[in-house]
Amino acid sequence: MGDMITILSKRSAFAGSPIQENDSIVAALAKKGKKIIRLNRGDPAPYFKTPKYIIDAYISALKNGITYYSSAAGLKDLREAVLKRHKRMYNLDADIDSVIITQGVSEALQFINSAMIDEGDSAVLFKPYYPLYSLFLNFYGGKAIMESYYESMNWNIDTDKLKKVIDAHKRDRIKYMLITNPNNPTGTVMGRNVLKEIVDIANDRGIFLISDEIYDEIVFNGANFTSLSEVAEGTKYMILNGASKDFDSTGFRLGYALIPGEDRDSMEVKRKFVELAMSRLSVNTPAQYAFAEGISNIKEHSKAVKSMVRQIADRANFVTRLVNDRDYMHAVEPNGAFYVFPRIDLKALHMKSDGEFVVKLLEEEGVQLTRGSGFGEGGHARIVALPPREILEEAVEKMDSFAKRHSAEA
Amino acid sequence: MGDMITILSKRSAFAGSPIQENDSIVAALAKKGKKIIRLNRGDPAPYFKTPKYIIDAYISALKNGITYYSSAAGLKDLREAVLKRHKRMYNLDADIDSVIITQGVSEALQFINSAMIDEGDSAVLFKPYYPLYSLFLNFYGGKAIMESYYESMNWNIDTDKLKKVIDAHKRDRIKYMLITNPNNPTGTVMGRNVLKEIVDIANDRGIFLISDEIYDEIVFNGANFTSLSEVAEGTKYMILNGASKDFDSTGFRLGYALIPGEDRDSMEVKRKFVELAMSRLSVNTPAQYAFAEGISNIKEHSKAVKSMVRQIADRANFVTRLVNDRDYMHAVEPNGAFYVFPRIDLKALHMKSDGEFVVKLLEEEGVQLTRGSGFGEGGHARIVALPPREILEEAVEKMDSFAKRHSAEA
Repeated sequence: MGDMITILSKRSAFAGSPIQENDSIVAALAKKGKKIIRLNRGDPAPYFKTPKYIIDAYISALKNGITYYSSAAGLKDLREAVLKRHKRMYNLDADIDSVIITQGVSEALQFINSAMIDEGDSAVLFKPYYPLYSLFLNFYGGKAIMESYYESMNWNIDTDKLKKVIDAHKRDRIKYMLITNPNNPTGTVMGRNVLKEIVDIANDRGIFLISDEIYDEIVFNGANFTSLSEVAEGTKYMILNGASKDFDSTGFRLGYALIPGEDRDSMEVKRKFVELAMSRLSVNTPAQYAFAEGISNIKEHSKAVKSMVRQIADRANFVTRLVNDRDYMHAVEPNGAFYVFPRIDLKALHMKSDGEFVVKLLEEEGVQLTRGSGFGEGGHARIVALPPREILEEAVEKMDSFAKRHSAEA
Repeated sequence: MGDMITILSKRSAFAGSPIQENDSIVAALAKKGKKIIRLNRGDPAPYFKTPKYIIDAYISALKNGITYYSSAAGLKDLREAVLKRHKRMYNLDADIDSVIITQGVSEALQFINSAMIDEGDSAVLFKPYYPLYSLFLNFYGGKAIMESYYESMNWNIDTDKLKKVIDAHKRDRIKYMLITNPNNPTGTVMGRNVLKEIVDIANDRGIFLISDEIYDEIVFNGANFTSLSEVAEGTKYMILNGASKDFDSTGFRLGYALIPGEDRDSMEVKRKFVELAMSRLSVNTPAQYAFAEGISNIKEHSKAVKSMVRQIADRANFVTRLVNDRDYMHAVEPNGAFYVFPRIDLKALHMKSDGEFVVKLLEEEGVQLTRGSGFGEGGHARIVALPPREILEEAVEKMDSFAKRHSAEA
């Protein structure tokens, strides 16, 4: 009986991550003593120390014996700190039931899709997308209605095309539309007017809108960030955010979903999120105290984030210049997050795909990037612009050797 | 379009927890200043301090700047510590790829069901069961083939009946069979011979066997615990365990799945678990260092767990005696974990269900238990025997007043 059936489920085929898919190659190369420059994972913590005041709060919680389960939806202190943050920064009024603390934005994405998506349902995504969006949508039986951030428009949304695409799917059960602002992998900061148009499009069609704003304080080159909540009048919507990026605390695994609306759909989603939170009992409790202090100590946070963003801007701009000095790649300048997402001239390098490009680059030169096709955008690669200039420069030089060698092939 | 469809998925109806389902009543009562004795959540940390050597290791990781993502399947140090633990305690030989670190056993249960269960698949469970077993099985479209731990057999499995039940489901796609040892909510420690028979039954039928052993060191009254791995020769199987109970660190949210086999199914499951782990990036990193030290410092752990288990045994035995001195309830004596699971004479109390019993007991007397039906076993209630004797005694006295009042009803 058991022997005749396959042990794995069909949905499990969607599990995995393009960002880490070559980690086994890295491990094998490292074993041989090969030096690897890893520019695949968007983790600031190895490069910028998590601020001391946050660490101190974490230690203090541990010393005070706060090692038990928290309430499922998160510590009251942290949920209130989140509300105050969004009131202060975006003038948002919401109550504590609107905030659910999650194990990173990744868990929030699981909650969204498991709570909202039935087999055959749809969601509007934009490519290039953060890989987990499509992963969890597919995992829970949904299919993407895929629009684009257009490279030719500096990775912005074409709202006319968006309308047409959605209206061409009138018969689909569209459960939500998900935008990322600032964007990963493109670094685009969405303009206020475009955001307003997107809100109108969602409103007119009764679509629940989700904005992943995990990089909302990592904005530079004079760009202005607008939170969805600032223009979301009358919309049913959700904001995703967390400790990982602005607070440089990836290893805490803390995110949150903020669902301010009191319309029926918003009420149902937030109630369901609490039940999903109960189904995994609790989030790490002492880390929640640390994050609460991270948000609440405005003075220390402001100092820390300003210094980090200044350095990130310098590194992102540096990589962009290096990239755009080359013939075999070109990138739109990012104004937020910490990625550079160049188009690669695969033809000139005699490569069939960006997947081949990143694997060969890793194997031959020890530089690990993420293939653009992992974000739904073939012919590109994502470079994490977090390490110091000299490492970034070394990486690009290695890419040059690689490109020279492969473009010379007959 | 959006307005005409329900926002929630069908599967989401399964989310929630009988253990926390009355927390909103608790919050409302607490607001009115009512004192509540909460005996619903199995959390030792509020009663026994998490050992200092574990807290020290956690703090040291934080001070050393270990705040970044770990590798998806967990820190090497922790995975190796887990292997050594199982070698030392149960003479198990396995390699590092067999261990996947999870966000509590709850995440491991999500991995199991999302990786293995397709719509219509089955799994063999035993009631009373830990609520998340059936929750996640149903959530991912599976259905339980439900056998029993029989109260009349001191909550043991009847292996003859088990064989018959499984063989009556010959046409089902049975993906796994899941046992809990020591048991939650009954406190039963499974005998070695029964365990061997279960292994044979699974082997003969090619069924993947899962043993949740999260309470494996919380055993008392002279009972002997046997790990599935000690008798699992030739079986494909998985052990679940973690930091929460033996290491008194619920709020860390750390569990692990241990899949030692090299058969095809075991290899596929462990590979898939790594991919599922990638799909949520990482587990809290500094906590993993703390847990690694928790396991590795055998001397300190042994001291801490012995002291905790001695007190738990005292409290569990105390509650059992109190319960069995009453007419309106009776419990089989537990020999492991920290729960007492009495049958309640609902008829004598003029109650229709154990759900009514626990809600009224909470509302009228401020004592919070969990209804047995939440574990699939109506007519019972689960008492968490962790607080000091005087609190447990006060709770039972309040139950007495409650019982007296309700049995007097005409």
